[in-house]
Amino acid sequence: MSSTIGKYMNYTLFGESHGTAIGMTIDGLPAGVKLDFNAIDQALIKRKTGQLLTSQRQEPDQVEWLSGLKAGFTTGAAVTFIIKNSGQRSVDYQKYDNIMRPSHADYTAHIKYKGYNDQRGGGMFSGRLTACYVVAGSIARQLLKEHDIVINADIVQLGELQLPRDVTVNRDKSWLAGLAPNWQQVVTDYLKEIAEQGDSIGGKVHISASGLPVGLGEPPFYSVEAVLSQYLLAVPGLKAISFGTGASFATKKGSQVADQMRYVGDEVTFLSNHNGGVLGGISNGQALDIDIVFKATPSIFKEQQTIDIAKKENCSLQLTGRHDPAFVIRTPIVVESVVAMALYDLWRAAR
Amino acid sequence: MSSTIGKYMNYTLFGESHGTAIGMTIDGLPAGVKLDFNAIDQALIKRKTGQLLTSQRQEPDQVEWLSGLKAGFTTGAAVTFIIKNSGQRSVDYQKYDNIMRPSHADYTAHIKYKGYNDQRGGGMFSGRLTACYVVAGSIARQLLKEHDIVINADIVQLGELQLPRDVTVNRDKSWLAGLAPNWQQVVTDYLKEIAEQGDSIGGKVHISASGLPVGLGEPPFYSVEAVLSQYLLAVPGLKAISFGTGASFATKKGSQVADQMRYVGDEVTFLSNHNGGVLGGISNGQALDIDIVFKATPSIFKEQQTIDIAKKENCSLQLTGRHDPAFVIRTPIVVESVVAMALYDLWRAAR
Amino acid sequence: MSSTIGKYMNYTLFGESHGTAIGMTIDGLPAGVKLDFNAIDQALIKRKTGQLLTSQRQEPDQVEWLSGLKAGFTTGAAVTFIIKNSGQRSVDYQKYDNIMRPSHADYTAHIKYKGYNDQRGGGMFSGRLTACYVVAGSIARQLLKEHDIVINADIVQLGELQLPRDVTVNRDKSWLAGLAPNWQQVVTDYLKEIAEQGDSIGGKVHISASGLPVGLGEPPFYSVEAVLSQYLLAVPGLKAISFGTGASFATKKGSQVADQMRYVGDEVTFLSNHNGGVLGGISNGQALDIDIVFKATPSIFKEQQTIDIAKKENCSLQLTGRHDPAFVIRTPIVVESVVAMALYDLWRAAR
Amino acid sequence: MSSTIGKYMNYTLFGESHGTAIGMTIDGLPAGVKLDFNAIDQALIKRKTGQLLTSQRQEPDQVEWLSGLKAGFTTGAAVTFIIKNSGQRSVDYQKYDNIMRPSHADYTAHIKYKGYNDQRGGGMFSGRLTACYVVAGSIARQLLKEHDIVINADIVQLGELQLPRDVTVNRDKSWLAGLAPNWQQVVTDYLKEIAEQGDSIGGKVHISASGLPVGLGEPPFYSVEAVLSQYLLAVPGLKAISFGTGASFATKKGSQVADQMRYVGDEVTFLSNHNGGVLGGISNGQALDIDIVFKATPSIFKEQQTIDIAKKENCSLQLTGRHDPAFVIRTPIVVESVVAMALYDLWRAAR
Repeated sequence: MSSTIGKYMNYTLFGESHGTAIGMTIDGLPAGVKLDFNAIDQALIKRKTGQLLTSQRQEPDQVEWLSGLKAGFTTGAAVTFIIKNSGQRSVDYQKYDNIMRPSHADYTAHIKYKGYNDQRGGGMFSGRLTACYVVAGSIARQLLKEHDIVINADIVQLGELQLPRDVTVNRDKSWLAGLAPNWQQVVTDYLKEIAEQGDSIGGKVHISASGLPVGLGEPPFYSVEAVLSQYLLAVPGLKAISFGTGASFATKKGSQVADQMRYVGDEVTFLSNHNGGVLGGISNGQALDIDIVFKATPSIFKEQQTIDIAKKENCSLQLTGRHDPAFVIRTPIVVESVVAMALYDLWRAAR
Repeated sequence: MSSTIGKYMNYTLFGESHGTAIGMTIDGLPAGVKLDFNAIDQALIKRKTGQLLTSQRQEPDQVEWLSGLKAGFTTGAAVTFIIKNSGQRSVDYQKYDNIMRPSHADYTAHIKYKGYNDQRGGGMFSGRLTACYVVAGSIARQLLKEHDIVINADIVQLGELQLPRDVTVNRDKSWLAGLAPNWQQVVTDYLKEIAEQGDSIGGKVHISASGLPVGLGEPPFYSVEAVLSQYLLAVPGLKAISFGTGASFATKKGSQVADQMRYVGDEVTFLSNHNGGVLGGISNGQALDIDIVFKATPSIFKEQQTIDIAKKENCSLQLTGRHDPAFVIRTPIVVESVVAMALYDLWRAAR
Repeated sequence: MSSTIGKYMNYTLFGESHGTAIGMTIDGLPAGVKLDFNAIDQALIKRKTGQLLTSQRQEPDQVEWLSGLKAGFTTGAAVTFIIKNSGQRSVDYQKYDNIMRPSHADYTAHIKYKGYNDQRGGGMFSGRLTACYVVAGSIARQLLKEHDIVINADIVQLGELQLPRDVTVNRDKSWLAGLAPNWQQVVTDYLKEIAEQGDSIGGKVHISASGLPVGLGEPPFYSVEAVLSQYLLAVPGLKAISFGTGASFATKKGSQVADQMRYVGDEVTFLSNHNGGVLGGISNGQALDIDIVFKATPSIFKEQQTIDIAKKENCSLQLTGRHDPAFVIRTPIVVESVVAMALYDLWRAAR
Repeated sequence: MSSTIGKYMNYTLFGESHGTAIGMTIDGLPAGVKLDFNAIDQALIKRKTGQLLTSQRQEPDQVEWLSGLKAGFTTGAAVTFIIKNSGQRSVDYQKYDNIMRPSHADYTAHIKYKGYNDQRGGGMFSGRLTACYVVAGSIARQLLKEHDIVINADIVQLGELQLPRDVTVNRDKSWLAGLAPNWQQVVTDYLKEIAEQGDSIGGKVHISASGLPVGLGEPPFYSVEAVLSQYLLAVPGLKAISFGTGASFATKKGSQVADQMRYVGDEVTFLSNHNGGVLGGISNGQALDIDIVFKATPSIFKEQQTIDIAKKENCSLQLTGRHDPAFVIRTPIVVESVVAMALYDLWRAAR
């Protein structure tokens, strides 16, 4: 395991889906920050209520603060919080303990950890741990907002559905609930159809971050892109990242994607943003522009071929229960959070 | 600057295009490795002769070994090598010193380093530094080959051209020279056409790595994807990365991309490889399958709008000289090298 | 704060004396280790009962395991445990909140953390956090013991008292309780005398570690001495470290301290161990031999001159309550623990 | 090997005594610093001329700057310099290649690096590499001096000789040459006597650093003491470190070593400095006060018992040639340099 991330900040993640608790130690926060606990709770609620179906266990995601705070202010000591696990229906899972679910981490974890890994609920690979990112990201966003840095993530593709970027009408709600009503209907209908097939679907998320100063990032190995990628890839199921014009650069001529510059008054402005806000690994003052792609929920309800690793024999697997047909719809708040964690690390480095 | 990469290995890169030398310190190699200097030279030649035109200075890329070797064997001490710079035609560049070339790092570096950065030839952002990756990568590949790990990178798209993966007939040569003759013609004609327009073009590279054991990678923050991304993003101009089915996951159903498993005899096999060889951030024993996209060479010969940052005024820029219309054609050996550096770090972590 | 230590292991410490809990995340343990919870509890009891007087709060030091374990075995995920704080008599402390106790961290922490630090009970500088070292150290010792590495710490000087190294007759008990009865009497009488004076006293601890293989340590910057020093200096109050002949080297001739070698059969043996088991920063197979010195308990009951930092005026301070006159007598188990943590990190590095 | 040190700075050391060159990459310097090359040369001369006898090879210690500089100013890129090795009389050494010199790193390095280490001249363990510390330390001192931080190291004990701290009358010269003439005589006579015996002697060095702000250091694991120890222990032959009252704390009562405080006007002053400028791992604004002890030069000219590791048999060793009887007399400039490197790292962390 490599559970600590960050160069100037140190975020240490711990926990497993069906262990006692998940949590994180955040080291490097300045002393004297009054934490906005309400914002943290709102972000956790957005994450929790983000799903279409109630695949997720309904525990309250109550954050317990163990260290680093006094009267609501950071003390300068490492801040640790936990969220207790409860209501795990382990029995659901035990019967699959030796059945390697396709496209899950079951098999790789089983081999790497010699069968000792806690496979229940996905163990340490569970999406549940992203609740910790949401807490840490909320704190980072609060600190970044003081410098007018604002981060937004929007789903722009969901299987066959293309979604314009402006269909979110309420950013205080979870992504699905915040959509314009007609789009909410379209998405819900589409996902229900997928669910009825016992299937799932992937999606693409667009991330923007505005307000960044020129100069974040330390090339060659701590560039804005490298740092963001490391944090983003800590979100389970993410399989592609592109910056600015991204994958489309492959077919573009230099003259089509040159971000020309002009002074407007004393201020440097760019005539386009093909590079997504980063040049040479360093932020250029334009908005960060990132696309990421998540795969479909690997838990589907169709019969699949796989192996029983204890019996060392082939078997088929027919999952039951409820799983969201597209976990991607729950990711926007998570993605915004890890981007905030990353940007705050970059921001501290460049003080 | 953040010039050191690696967790179990430490690669420290230094140098600027028009400084005295570029080089690297490689810390963490075992003692007693007989370096294959011939392989290193071959790799450097592949990189150097990779271009279509002679945009690059014709210095010999002579590697000088400063430390860590005795009679050709590693001593266990840090291995440092340098490649001297020579023949820089700085005069070509000086006239542009205050002109911020669009889509280059000129502007961000100027601001971050308060105008003290060495802009000549791209300074520390120059593609020239990738020669150091090629040396370090050759060493890593030699060590990985002992474990039957083999890495290949192929250009699969170049602007409008789609290239099948099997058009390379000779991997001992640079990418272009190693293509089947008809394809070599097609590519050359296409690039010449682009060059005649004074323009440039981007491209997509496919990377595969076979022979990996199950179990590389340490989630959540040192996953195979995160580590590879950090190394890959150290190659200038790279703007998108995707693993396995990658960006196409956005439109795929779970049932379409489930990598089902079977025992064939005692051996676990996968019926597909949508996840690109990685599940839960850990290698699953299948071939690594990555796509990356490079932008077009930012130096083009069309007039561009930009700024003179010393005079604080707008200006236009008309570059002259010779630049390769697609630096992507030189990247396969570089990409293979950074992947090797990354995989060797991952491999050491998992010993 | 810099709350994570270790290169191959990552130990992340958190908590403050009067916060909700103290704890640690241990990242890097192999999967499948059956933890010896009894040994952990015994070590905690040794630490807790180590004092002469009952200066310490009598909470039970109950370890709660939050992650990384399943059925008593490590899962490969990060192991996090906490020890809840309880029974804090904060009222004792509040009145001193702005009074900077001499030789404590009150003043430096107040300035560094702009007055937001949690000063109660010493906050994050409290000796209470060493309970976490004891837990982590117990696990490390268990793993080292499999390789026959054994660590012992003995107090060899306590103010005017010189203690021979062999006065401990029972290593299962805390240091004081494990002394030969006559020595127990001598020490107790001496410390009571100090306590009656309202004063405190420092001491010297000798550490030995046997069973180390040749080859631990990675010079120049991760030498055995450097690594041990970093861990040892995380124990509050430690002010001097010496290896082997240590400070006495200043007056020794080369011929007096040369560790000459001989083959005895096939085995290399040393005729002396002036270098304390380390040559060139690398373990030489002899026993590790370290002396460390702790200062006297800074909390004394004599009137002291100091400042009220809120009122910005001079004042005098007369502490009341009970404090152990020599916290050094509680340190042997703590010292053994941090040495085990360090050696396990070194051992993993050298696999 | 672990060749990179520093948390906010990254210093990467490379080279071996009889390799092509020694050198260092310094990563993290701000852009726009005009390096004081004269000060660097003066420091190297102090180091080179520091010895009594001419044990050291007389190469000129010419620094070649490879990267990170333009017109004498730092560019923000990693600064790399090398010092070429020349005039190595390897023949002197080759005959001892399999003879393990007592109290040297020969044996531990031979085992760790499976016989592939470069033993000539001590290889990577050679005191010669400290020239790199002197260069990096000079740069760090230049940057610290802007903040009025001044570092001095003085030998206070040399075998039987006790030296008052004020016997240095000229800090521009090497330690021995800068002593008051009568002391210069005393020391020279003493060392010649030791040399005539074919023996060597150890010594103690006192380090002070004034001008530090309150608040450097990040406990628990990046405390001022821990950071300084890590850097100091990178100097070969150092075997003991103590802070402030140091080892004498073992016999001191709390009331004797309490650093009481007073306001003098608005300023906080301490009535003593037993804690050596550090409380709770954080600088308290008083002068740093450290004692370190070096062992005697391990190369002596008396016959010693040792082993021939190739023949696997016992042998005796009678070194010839010239070695300084006390390398400690050359260490003050080296020690000041590593302390400067460490303090600059601490200073940057606390910006």
